[in-house]
Amino acid sequence: MLNKTYTKYIQSLHNKKSRDVEGVFIGEGTKVVVELLQTRQFLCKDVLCTKKWFDENNNLIGKYFDEELKIIEDFELEKISALTTPNEVLAVFAKKGSTEPSLKGNISLMLDTIQDPGNLGTIIRIADWFGIENIICSNGTADMYNPKVVQSTMGSLARVNVVYKDLPEWLEENKDVKIYAATLEGTPIKEINIKEGIILIGNESKGVSNELLNRADENITIPKIGNAESLNAAVATGIILSHIC
Amino acid sequence: MLNKTYTKYIQSLHNKKSRDVEGVFIGEGTKVVVELLQTRQFLCKDVLCTKKWFDENNNLIGKYFDEELKIIEDFELEKISALTTPNEVLAVFAKKGSTEPSLKGNISLMLDTIQDPGNLGTIIRIADWFGIENIICSNGTADMYNPKVVQSTMGSLARVNVVYKDLPEWLEENKDVKIYAATLEGTPIKEINIKEGIILIGNESKGVSNELLNRADENITIPKIGNAESLNAAVATGIILSHIC
Repeated sequence: MLNKTYTKYIQSLHNKKSRDVEGVFIGEGTKVVVELLQTRQFLCKDVLCTKKWFDENNNLIGKYFDEELKIIEDFELEKISALTTPNEVLAVFAKKGSTEPSLKGNISLMLDTIQDPGNLGTIIRIADWFGIENIICSNGTADMYNPKVVQSTMGSLARVNVVYKDLPEWLEENKDVKIYAATLEGTPIKEINIKEGIILIGNESKGVSNELLNRADENITIPKIGNAESLNAAVATGIILSHIC
Repeated sequence: MLNKTYTKYIQSLHNKKSRDVEGVFIGEGTKVVVELLQTRQFLCKDVLCTKKWFDENNNLIGKYFDEELKIIEDFELEKISALTTPNEVLAVFAKKGSTEPSLKGNISLMLDTIQDPGNLGTIIRIADWFGIENIICSNGTADMYNPKVVQSTMGSLARVNVVYKDLPEWLEENKDVKIYAATLEGTPIKEINIKEGIILIGNESKGVSNELLNRADENITIPKIGNAESLNAAVATGIILSHIC
């Protein structure tokens, strides 16, 4: 049985402010929880699950988590879950410190105010698929520890280094890095060959800001054949990386 | 002022059953409403908007909609909206009859039980971007008139022909069509050249069903460099089409 204080504590972690104060975040669902445990990138503070989940999956995480799992009722899970359809398990992890991205010889991603948590999570998952190690986000980008981001990364959160920066300032300090901005007009992605540098993806509705566009070394584009006005930011990221990587 | 009966009527359109009975669906937000009106693919039955929206956008849709717009209050819009953050305008459109897809000389999409409405909407938008005219969905795929699908198509719904079929039956009747199934193992997309046929995309967690896999002429794959277990279905669709189209 979950007490009121702990219920409120977990609920508070749905919000960035509390996550920042507490230094922890929540992950939900078997895939996310098990992967985050197995990669040993985030210290696990607590696992709360239904009796059914415990019976079926306890063996999956036993060696990655020493403490006792908290068995809770469905209605209790519903109360603390950030999902519309709560899964059978929820875990609390400590956030980790970010590492300065190492860009030499690599392709990295830079996100200019990606606001939709689902998009950010999907982009982290795409980065993991294509072996991209670093994502540099503007401070206005969704929080990587937002439950919806964690959910849509499907475990990839543990394998990609995500950092938040004041982008104009950071670029000022990193003048030698080549920036390729994804725009609606530019060099078609089939015609370029990028071995090192940063792919810059813009906001869902406004695209890349003018300030950052001015700093870009080259604009790149996904040629359009039909009539849609734009592509979803995560889809565009996937397409660009699939041609470059 | 919206009366109770009409409020309930619009709310009922959040559900597929009512949409099927009434033969109508709702679209929300300036971009979606204006595009659906301008393409003249769906008969518009009603437009409900805030006073502010009316003053700013009435001229945009005047020539596409003869009848009087219904000015409503913010709290009324909130009641009838299917969005978490209601936009300033909501319109009711008549569904259209689907056309038998013409496959000759074309690349088409086939979706095997895509369940997430956001994914389906994003795939329709991707199809529109790459000039794909037809999407053949299994009966278990999300409803194209689900408000979240309509929302995430961003207006592309009017430009892509989406039909629902019993896929095994339909394939039995269309034995000459080449089927390329997107799977985790198969011919890398950079190595194939497809001029005509159907790209088959599977369910978000289960992939393409065995029954359909057996019918496929070739399995195609997006080579993985990193460690993510899979890619989001809409992202995979975008990547595949970007290499083929």
